[in-house]
Amino acid sequence: MTLKVYADRVSQPSRAVLLFCKVNGVEFEEVRVDISKNQQLSPAYEEINPMKQVPAIVDGSLNLFESHTILIYLASSFPGVAEHWYPADPRRRARIHSLLDWHHSNLRLGSSGYILNKEATRLGIPLDPQAAAKSEKLLLSSLFKIETVWLEDTGRFLLGGNQPSIADLSLVCEIMQLEVRLLDEQDHNRILSRHRKIQQWIEDTIKATQPHFDEVHKTLFKLKKQWQTLGTNTETESDLKPTLVSRL
Amino acid sequence: MTLKVYADRVSQPSRAVLLFCKVNGVEFEEVRVDISKNQQLSPAYEEINPMKQVPAIVDGSLNLFESHTILIYLASSFPGVAEHWYPADPRRRARIHSLLDWHHSNLRLGSSGYILNKEATRLGIPLDPQAAAKSEKLLLSSLFKIETVWLEDTGRFLLGGNQPSIADLSLVCEIMQLEVRLLDEQDHNRILSRHRKIQQWIEDTIKATQPHFDEVHKTLFKLKKQWQTLGTNTETESDLKPTLVSRL
Repeated sequence: MTLKVYADRVSQPSRAVLLFCKVNGVEFEEVRVDISKNQQLSPAYEEINPMKQVPAIVDGSLNLFESHTILIYLASSFPGVAEHWYPADPRRRARIHSLLDWHHSNLRLGSSGYILNKEATRLGIPLDPQAAAKSEKLLLSSLFKIETVWLEDTGRFLLGGNQPSIADLSLVCEIMQLEVRLLDEQDHNRILSRHRKIQQWIEDTIKATQPHFDEVHKTLFKLKKQWQTLGTNTETESDLKPTLVSRL
Repeated sequence: MTLKVYADRVSQPSRAVLLFCKVNGVEFEEVRVDISKNQQLSPAYEEINPMKQVPAIVDGSLNLFESHTILIYLASSFPGVAEHWYPADPRRRARIHSLLDWHHSNLRLGSSGYILNKEATRLGIPLDPQAAAKSEKLLLSSLFKIETVWLEDTGRFLLGGNQPSIADLSLVCEIMQLEVRLLDEQDHNRILSRHRKIQQWIEDTIKATQPHFDEVHKTLFKLKKQWQTLGTNTETESDLKPTLVSRL
């Protein structure tokens, strides 16, 4: 029975799982769960994932959710996955777990809170200024920790590796969510562009996962275009990708 | 070289790691990092854990932080740890990962936010009412999910097991933090006591880890006594433990 991946490509953890499968030639069927239509809240999907979130997978009798869990499971259980994605050595594995655990309460929490507030502002919904300030502070401190702790000087990828691991996929997909939301150049400079090591790492991770990276992120790039059209930015669709990539 | 565990017993993830070591006869040296004195922020401790949090371990040349990561590492690497704490089977292991990952953004986030607000109220610090409401909502929905999803009907422990796993330790230690903070009987009933399956599971996990559970939680029980003395509660020290246990 084919592995089923329930995902929406506008969701960063969904993209990380899809990207992993594609890069590693894991055979799967992608089942779209359209979160813009609240399909993740349907009773049918609740049978797949009682937490009503994407992504989730079904592998035979096993239903699994939480993207880090899924990445670890796929990397451990499917043949043909190269060792560097999730090394068997307990110490190297432990360092990947440490980074993934840290991610939950730091970059993910800060970035998703920041994006939520940006979206609220865009839609004219009243903001909680204290929550917005807290999210931005957490986001900035998380990016600082990536730059100074996780991106060691010994390699191109997180944890000093010369090849990417599942942690690179998870964190880069998270940052891409931020990248497409930072429409304002000043915000972009203040939050993302000034982190030179992060930008180089994103570029390296994109290169290491092409052409799948672009394919999995196409929906997100299109959304950015729509948001830009709604705003003051006048870039044409053909300008969008080079602009995005040059920023990284 | 002996494993070093850097911990403060008032921290719930610190207690989970200490409890695991004691229950499994892992030899270690406990190094107290007094968070009431901000020792986790010292330059010396930053060398151990750049994220300036407890717990952390040092095992030879490996420094490791994040409690779930530490639990997984110890269960995988140290001899004599019984299989049920972290089964080798990829599917059972994946379900434990899923629960631990879920914990970060749900019970942990809701419970620690709720406690922070309770503490602010006790100290007369102005609250952010929106953040307080959000934390309580997340805490209640997390407890509901434990009761209805994670505590399956097939076993006494999380994920339907008949023996505890590292996930039971992590979540029970989190809930004990809540237990000692819910000094008001009405709050206790509304938030904890009404969850019958959770109460039975806590009792079973405590029983399965005695006498270490009580030893590791002694500091917390004493703190509860101090808070109660500062409030209106007139329990004596000798009343405290039975009262606490009878509630579970």
